[in-house]
Amino acid sequence: MIKDIKEEGKISLPCLISRCDKAKTVKGTPYLSLSLEDSTGILDAKFWNLTDEQVESYHVGMIVQATGDVILHKNAIQLKVRTLKELPEEKITDYVRQAPMKADEMKKEIEFYINEVKNQDLAILTQTILDEVQEDYYSYPAAKKNHHNYVGGLAYHSLSMVRLSLKICELYPFLDVDLLICACILHDVGKIEEFSSPVLPEYTAQGNLLGHISILAMKVDRVCHELNLQDQESILLLKHMILSHHGKMEFGSPVVPMTPEAEVLSTVDNLDSRLYMMKESIDICQSGEFGPRIFALENRMVYRRKDQE
Amino acid sequence: MIKDIKEEGKISLPCLISRCDKAKTVKGTPYLSLSLEDSTGILDAKFWNLTDEQVESYHVGMIVQATGDVILHKNAIQLKVRTLKELPEEKITDYVRQAPMKADEMKKEIEFYINEVKNQDLAILTQTILDEVQEDYYSYPAAKKNHHNYVGGLAYHSLSMVRLSLKICELYPFLDVDLLICACILHDVGKIEEFSSPVLPEYTAQGNLLGHISILAMKVDRVCHELNLQDQESILLLKHMILSHHGKMEFGSPVVPMTPEAEVLSTVDNLDSRLYMMKESIDICQSGEFGPRIFALENRMVYRRKDQE
Amino acid sequence: MIKDIKEEGKISLPCLISRCDKAKTVKGTPYLSLSLEDSTGILDAKFWNLTDEQVESYHVGMIVQATGDVILHKNAIQLKVRTLKELPEEKITDYVRQAPMKADEMKKEIEFYINEVKNQDLAILTQTILDEVQEDYYSYPAAKKNHHNYVGGLAYHSLSMVRLSLKICELYPFLDVDLLICACILHDVGKIEEFSSPVLPEYTAQGNLLGHISILAMKVDRVCHELNLQDQESILLLKHMILSHHGKMEFGSPVVPMTPEAEVLSTVDNLDSRLYMMKESIDICQSGEFGPRIFALENRMVYRRKDQE
Amino acid sequence: MIKDIKEEGKISLPCLISRCDKAKTVKGTPYLSLSLEDSTGILDAKFWNLTDEQVESYHVGMIVQATGDVILHKNAIQLKVRTLKELPEEKITDYVRQAPMKADEMKKEIEFYINEVKNQDLAILTQTILDEVQEDYYSYPAAKKNHHNYVGGLAYHSLSMVRLSLKICELYPFLDVDLLICACILHDVGKIEEFSSPVLPEYTAQGNLLGHISILAMKVDRVCHELNLQDQESILLLKHMILSHHGKMEFGSPVVPMTPEAEVLSTVDNLDSRLYMMKESIDICQSGEFGPRIFALENRMVYRRKDQE
Amino acid sequence: MIKDIKEEGKISLPCLISRCDKAKTVKGTPYLSLSLEDSTGILDAKFWNLTDEQVESYHVGMIVQATGDVILHKNAIQLKVRTLKELPEEKITDYVRQAPMKADEMKKEIEFYINEVKNQDLAILTQTILDEVQEDYYSYPAAKKNHHNYVGGLAYHSLSMVRLSLKICELYPFLDVDLLICACILHDVGKIEEFSSPVLPEYTAQGNLLGHISILAMKVDRVCHELNLQDQESILLLKHMILSHHGKMEFGSPVVPMTPEAEVLSTVDNLDSRLYMMKESIDICQSGEFGPRIFALENRMVYRRKDQE
Amino acid sequence: MIKDIKEEGKISLPCLISRCDKAKTVKGTPYLSLSLEDSTGILDAKFWNLTDEQVESYHVGMIVQATGDVILHKNAIQLKVRTLKELPEEKITDYVRQAPMKADEMKKEIEFYINEVKNQDLAILTQTILDEVQEDYYSYPAAKKNHHNYVGGLAYHSLSMVRLSLKICELYPFLDVDLLICACILHDVGKIEEFSSPVLPEYTAQGNLLGHISILAMKVDRVCHELNLQDQESILLLKHMILSHHGKMEFGSPVVPMTPEAEVLSTVDNLDSRLYMMKESIDICQSGEFGPRIFALENRMVYRRKDQE
Repeated sequence: MIKDIKEEGKISLPCLISRCDKAKTVKGTPYLSLSLEDSTGILDAKFWNLTDEQVESYHVGMIVQATGDVILHKNAIQLKVRTLKELPEEKITDYVRQAPMKADEMKKEIEFYINEVKNQDLAILTQTILDEVQEDYYSYPAAKKNHHNYVGGLAYHSLSMVRLSLKICELYPFLDVDLLICACILHDVGKIEEFSSPVLPEYTAQGNLLGHISILAMKVDRVCHELNLQDQESILLLKHMILSHHGKMEFGSPVVPMTPEAEVLSTVDNLDSRLYMMKESIDICQSGEFGPRIFALENRMVYRRKDQE
Repeated sequence: MIKDIKEEGKISLPCLISRCDKAKTVKGTPYLSLSLEDSTGILDAKFWNLTDEQVESYHVGMIVQATGDVILHKNAIQLKVRTLKELPEEKITDYVRQAPMKADEMKKEIEFYINEVKNQDLAILTQTILDEVQEDYYSYPAAKKNHHNYVGGLAYHSLSMVRLSLKICELYPFLDVDLLICACILHDVGKIEEFSSPVLPEYTAQGNLLGHISILAMKVDRVCHELNLQDQESILLLKHMILSHHGKMEFGSPVVPMTPEAEVLSTVDNLDSRLYMMKESIDICQSGEFGPRIFALENRMVYRRKDQE
Repeated sequence: MIKDIKEEGKISLPCLISRCDKAKTVKGTPYLSLSLEDSTGILDAKFWNLTDEQVESYHVGMIVQATGDVILHKNAIQLKVRTLKELPEEKITDYVRQAPMKADEMKKEIEFYINEVKNQDLAILTQTILDEVQEDYYSYPAAKKNHHNYVGGLAYHSLSMVRLSLKICELYPFLDVDLLICACILHDVGKIEEFSSPVLPEYTAQGNLLGHISILAMKVDRVCHELNLQDQESILLLKHMILSHHGKMEFGSPVVPMTPEAEVLSTVDNLDSRLYMMKESIDICQSGEFGPRIFALENRMVYRRKDQE
Repeated sequence: MIKDIKEEGKISLPCLISRCDKAKTVKGTPYLSLSLEDSTGILDAKFWNLTDEQVESYHVGMIVQATGDVILHKNAIQLKVRTLKELPEEKITDYVRQAPMKADEMKKEIEFYINEVKNQDLAILTQTILDEVQEDYYSYPAAKKNHHNYVGGLAYHSLSMVRLSLKICELYPFLDVDLLICACILHDVGKIEEFSSPVLPEYTAQGNLLGHISILAMKVDRVCHELNLQDQESILLLKHMILSHHGKMEFGSPVVPMTPEAEVLSTVDNLDSRLYMMKESIDICQSGEFGPRIFALENRMVYRRKDQE
Repeated sequence: MIKDIKEEGKISLPCLISRCDKAKTVKGTPYLSLSLEDSTGILDAKFWNLTDEQVESYHVGMIVQATGDVILHKNAIQLKVRTLKELPEEKITDYVRQAPMKADEMKKEIEFYINEVKNQDLAILTQTILDEVQEDYYSYPAAKKNHHNYVGGLAYHSLSMVRLSLKICELYPFLDVDLLICACILHDVGKIEEFSSPVLPEYTAQGNLLGHISILAMKVDRVCHELNLQDQESILLLKHMILSHHGKMEFGSPVVPMTPEAEVLSTVDNLDSRLYMMKESIDICQSGEFGPRIFALENRMVYRRKDQE
Repeated sequence: MIKDIKEEGKISLPCLISRCDKAKTVKGTPYLSLSLEDSTGILDAKFWNLTDEQVESYHVGMIVQATGDVILHKNAIQLKVRTLKELPEEKITDYVRQAPMKADEMKKEIEFYINEVKNQDLAILTQTILDEVQEDYYSYPAAKKNHHNYVGGLAYHSLSMVRLSLKICELYPFLDVDLLICACILHDVGKIEEFSSPVLPEYTAQGNLLGHISILAMKVDRVCHELNLQDQESILLLKHMILSHHGKMEFGSPVVPMTPEAEVLSTVDNLDSRLYMMKESIDICQSGEFGPRIFALENRMVYRRKDQE
């Protein structure tokens, strides 16, 4: 597995081509600059001295058996490829990183929470939308990069937010737990249309031009009309939570949180994604050192304490 | 008419009570602090020495015959009311400021432009939405204050934007004139739900919690599904224009303009409203002087030139 | 009690003078403009037609029996005072708002949490600092205005933060619960020197010139030297949490959160104070309406839903 | 022509050296890294294996016949030069991009507009300044990069702005058309001193130290004194328009627009340059795709619709 | 003198009317709300129970003998006027605050510094501009409010900046002392046209529309052409210093400091004005207290130490 | 010496390895990418064709005799190393850049200023802190890069600030010269713990997590308690100056300057570091040209005048 590659030497492993840039050397010889992935990590690779025909035979999304020499280039691991042999039977989803829970476990827990919702308008709306997108809900990532950018990230991040919201509702009992459960589950459903696919996601045209917040708001509104729920105040409050969950207008929310539940949703979304990024930075960092500056954390570095095992 | 009141003296005129604050003097005597309006302007007024019963008999939205003494208080005209007599037959719309075109003239011109639209998907969508809101489209204001804040302001501002966009399309022929006509006509339709009524408008709960941009985006999406237009690229581009027409995320647009037509829509909206505010400031200003600082113009003052008649 | 005053009429009640401005009428007659408080609220008052001697006999902090007439002035309740008679036996702390828990209950719960701390360096440091400030810790407010601005607010707000942090630690087990308990308890201890007193607090000179963050950082550092703990990494991490708990440099933190625990502390501080402010705004607001714009919530209004009992 | 080079192979073409960086390989052999331009585009090139004497014989601004091999390097076209032979008879202006109108056509249209100006003070001032800079006015670019960065760009951009302003004046008849014609023609004349030359422009020392806005303001003021026009209000208003045309102080305008004409000038300048950049991005983009992020458009991408021919 | 009025009682003193607002009481009786000034301070005043004719006979700029009763209104001194008698022989300049040096002393020192300038181009330019504005240079204020807002403030502030710059040049000998002397003397000369007059200054139309920075830059450029100095590099550097002396574009400088001398000029201008504002705040503040928030100091308060005599 | 290397050719010189990155060529051959320093400058170097053992034998901080060929690579000087021979007897401090004054001269001048301080509390506090850090005070740099980033930079920068403050106190005699002397001397002492060592400094964990401002504030507070000075107002004012010396909260000061002395300290710190950066940019720039954009000067370029010798 890629995460086990720590030093120079020969290797052979099955993996996914997730980046495939064609290039030529100064002397005009074609070569490939590649990213190879499996479910445990990503490996930088170069495939030198190819013919034009060879170069054309590889592309993003192909599963291959890669052999070659691991070398250190600029203090980083790199694979000097000897051979890439296509593995046509393999499924791409076996070669990408996955959420720490299985899809059906997540589904069971999500449905448990929907069952807990007392407000039937909210429960039916939420279930109807999940029914529209169901398989995708458990396979899409929560983001293209930064946090929960793996298969099942959308559902896993939403689930973490439900759990955290339930804890907060215990301490602040004036909060409406139904609104929070449904908003946590739904808040990023628009990402299914914002991204091109659950693996190797790209922004779609409508993702860029509308944004996942408006995509979801429009979907909720349409489904509410179909269910004849458009006049319920709880629906208005849920829409408000969806629209305001980025917390500030400069982050793409057309309105800012004006209810305690909207404030909690935005806080919980932030906290879960920030702790993900901090934890990930710590995991790849030496004890007593700081990781790299992280753009999505306002360019902060994260410190890994000396005694952290 | 209110705009004709220039100096101290007795007057009697029919007008609308548009603000009605109840108060008591230091000695405990009830009085009313009022704003009185007719189709030409607004007048500040005080009605002293009332009983509690009298105070309760007046309210916002009432049409009255007001008599009293015009005085100068802190360099401003004020009416010291002697009597207020209700005029129950009068219609409130006769006592508020109006767009410079009649509703049916505006309607004729709007429909002329829709007829010019070659893209039938856009034309049908636009007409269907106008059919949903029709009377309101020609009576709502374009804003609560700042610009086109009069009966018919929404339609008149939209019409000015269509005209200006057509001029721009003549000079930049790569622009899609159909998209611009429809987006100008529709862009502020969400204000009909954002405001409580065409006269004496207040923000509604859904106006504050969702905002007119999202209200309209949801309406357009729902109508497109009903008309089975949801997959047309022109519809996607129109939605993008609606969502991005405030130009910047910090002004409440969840996405920024990413097509030339979206850029033109946002520019034309801005220019028409800014020229309105500047013209209005000049109209009440002395030659060779600056008007007051205007918050919606980033706190700028506007200069009225000496030779401006 | 002040919270029960809803309409005009005569009253007599014991209360605290919390504002006392001396003034003269246009005709030169002295009077007092006052704020009167008890444990349930604040009342605006005027005391007319005094002599210079009478005016000098009243001051902030005095407990008095006030009699007079409640009137409506500009839609707000105001007391026209007839007599103010000093109540020299009364204690000021009976006339100010109080935390919803008693001091000794809060103390017991705080000490329970310190006992839970496994890292003895952190536990001893925290206990030593509480021993230095102890009575004040349970009487000072958490802020001069905005949130938890009542007797015992500092301890109550800190306690809420401990509880919330413990919940978060259950869901994110890589977090150091000892650091979070101690940092929540200590984070605002510097306010005891930033404010002049637990009731009627004013900013002290050192409060303005140093700020409560630096005041506490210096205290922690000094106590650590006295306890010979200055070289422990856990102490460094605690100091970092104290310094960074405002989350951003422009809010007065000299460094930004660079550990997950610092991020959680800052989030929990924010969430507890924001929910306080939102709840308070809802409590004084009509159903289906928005409260006033709140500066400390970035000028947002808060919505009270229609069905909120 | 450079725009016709689409694939690998041998070529020979006349072109301008617009960048000429001298370098040595790891082994110490001199080579040149070049940009080659003609009136249709720009080509990246490397000239390997030279002697020190050869390296010294080439420089920016030289016209050459280039032969060599087109290769793909990092997915981009690059010329591996075999020979560069100077073409001493060729004129540099034949090898740079040009405005879509000829200089004398632009001059005729500009003079037509000046003839339309009724205010003789403004007309004479404008003509006098054009007489001072005349040839340069029709050859300088409007910007070093971003928009209208070609020979004649200054005049062409100014002309587009006049045309657009005239359209706007038709719809807002209170605008002073004379001021707008003259301000559009003059507003960027300071760029003639801000840039070193019409082709291969660099910022001059005075361009950086004073900026084109102040350079023009000083020129207008001096010419007004020579023409004895310094006390006319129209001159003051024209100066204001020049100073404020960047719209905001943070964009280098020492004052912000305080007249409707200044607002229109700033809007028209913005709109013409933004539409230029958006159109150019669309022209080099695939249908249904987004172009690169554009710094001068606040980092936005531009979308090219699927059906755009 | 006004600064000596500390308590209630009768007074009679000669003073300048510097604000004169006409008003009527609730009952319609005319009165005047006035500011009265002498060379030591400002006094708030009310003149009750006048006739319309009396009200019309007073105006800003009139010198009067005022008699009346000093009273305390809202903790502030106010004069209840009994009589105002015009003193037609008095000169307004005797009744406004003055710089701490006499005009001819300042002139002598300024001319001494110009004599020290070795670069004759700079010296002649500076002297020529002072010759154009001379009397005004020694009577105008440096600002309308905030700092050095008294007769002679422009010259006194400039002089303080020359002195401070000379000290800095001693420590950083690479600085060009000639440039700094001339730039300090000239930098605010544009305020003479930005303000209407040395006493009771208002912003002129050209002050608002052009700003004092551009007014001076244009004047310097014109005078340089008349003296045939337009091509000297020292003149370019001086112009750059004038344009950049506000330090940042958002403060109205069209360019930012790009030479060490420009950086020093901007720093010295800032420091002298900030120390003025801080000193003035301390002078009116109690020991151990903070003065009011000062907008021009980014809303900071200033602390007066306990032991400051 | 490194500063004397101007052209290609063979050289041999003793120097410090201050950067030492291990790498491999495309073909897998190890090499080193190095920075070599002596007291006059920095040299970029490559050491090709090594074995793995050779690569491991070099590290940062080693003094070596380097021989090789100076070549021009991308218009910059680079050393192609032939041999690197360790010089074990050499001291690292002879191979790094030094302040323009010797440590003992700086110490003498610093102590002279402390002797001038009349307030004995401040003098003793300052001396005690210097006694704690003494050798380091005269060897640490004032910054990791940007300004005074050489051995002794901390003391030299502090000394320049004392000198400049004394000049300012002459002109503004209300300033407290004792506070300014001590604050200038102490303000950056926290950098001794913020950086890992006087040469080749890196940020320490506590440097990143606490920042030098808080490190010093805590040290001052602890020493004051040890000296029993904690209640003196002058100590409070000194602490305020230390905390506020970055001038703005967004630059890491938890409070902003609220005394004239704090304002002067912040201004003097800024001016000395900015003039350093500007002078350094001019020194490496051609006459009549601009240097590179400097991040720490808000991305400004600096101009070197034509006649600057």
